[in-house]
This record gives sequence, structure tokens and C-alpha cells, in this order.
Amino acid sequence: MADELGHPSLEEMDLGKVLTALSDPLRRRVVTELIVEPGDAERTCASFNLPVSKSTCTHHFRVLRESGLVTDMDYGNRRGVRLRRLEVEQRFPGLLELLAQNTGTARPQA
Amino acid sequence: MADELGHPSLEEMDLGKVLTALSDPLRRRVVTELIVEPGDAERTCASFNLPVSKSTCTHHFRVLRESGLVTDMDYGNRRGVRLRRLEVEQRFPGLLELLAQNTGTARPQA
Repeated sequence: MADELGHPSLEEMDLGKVLTALSDPLRRRVVTELIVEPGDAERTCASFNLPVSKSTCTHHFRVLRESGLVTDMDYGNRRGVRLRRLEVEQRFPGLLELLAQNTGTARPQA
Repeated sequence: MADELGHPSLEEMDLGKVLTALSDPLRRRVVTELIVEPGDAERTCASFNLPVSKSTCTHHFRVLRESGLVTDMDYGNRRGVRLRRLEVEQRFPGLLELLAQNTGTARPQA
């Protein structure tokens, strides 16, 4: 069952929600940056320098959290995210590798 | 370069567009059904029995075609799609396997 912050359990992770989360280029950037972090490093929202408002950043973090891709921690004065690496690998084998191999290949939209 | 029907070349296939295409449950259903077809079997739009209008079906086929996942053939009186299996495998290794392993795991949205 999802916890009070909306983190789904392993069994609840849904590929549709995960793909929706990853279809946004900024959210994909957060995940691909977390993939190359050592271990389960925690990053703050601000550290990604997303070109969006704080509330939009909060929205993106929520979508990522509810998909199961990240753990989202609210410290009151700042938020941190951590990739749920082992769980995502277990539930969707190959997904993180696919994302890692396609970092920066996005081309400008026609 | 994309052809006149909007089929991107292998190099033009963009993970963002592919993930957007696959984030829709009906489009994902089309692709997962094509995955289990033998070889490069062609299916008509009607054969998927999508619970949508003909124009919406045409829209979904266009999104799939423009992402590079399928070849879309217009025969005038009917349309057919075919999975670009080898090309998708080459461009995004593991993606089709990921989709195949997660068929039917979608749960009702809360």
C-alpha cells in the first residue's frame, strides 16, 4: 500500500504511471541525473536547476514520487529526492539502463 | 530524415517521444499486442477493438508512427500498423522486453 506521502510499494508500481512520469523531459532529467549519482545519494530539488517555478518543481517531484521512481523527503525548509534504484531495477528490469543510455539524445522538437 | 508520412529514421527516434507514445494505455496496448505477433505481422486499426472513435484511433496511430514505434500504412479504405521491431530493438535495447513483461499489470487508477 502507498504510504502517507504517496510512495507506492513495489507491487503497486505501474508501468503506465512510470512512463507518464518519464515522458516529461524535466522529470526524465531528474531521474537520469540520479542514475549517475553514486549509490542512493540524495539531491535537493534546487540542485537540479530546473527552469521552472518552485511549485512546478514540487509538482514534478510529486509525479516522480507517486510513480515509485523516487523517494521524496520533505524536511520543511527543503525537499530531497533519492532514486529507488534497487526497487525500480527489480520491478522494471532494464528501464534505468535504457534511460542511462539515452541521456542527452533528445533532439529539438520539429 | 522522417519520410512524408512522418516515420522517423532510426537516428531520429527520440526516447521522449517514444515514452510519451507509450504512456497512453491504449497505445501501449497496441504495441504490446504487436510485440507478441509473429515476425512483422501487420494489423489493422480495427483489429485492436480500441474503445474509441475512428478519428481517435487515427490519432493514436499517428502518435505511434511519429515516435518511430510502428510503420503505419494507409490503404485508403483501411490502415495497418506493423511494429518496427528490429529498429526499436537497435535504438532502445530492452524496451520491448520491458513492455512485454509488463502486459496487463496496469491496475485501476485510484
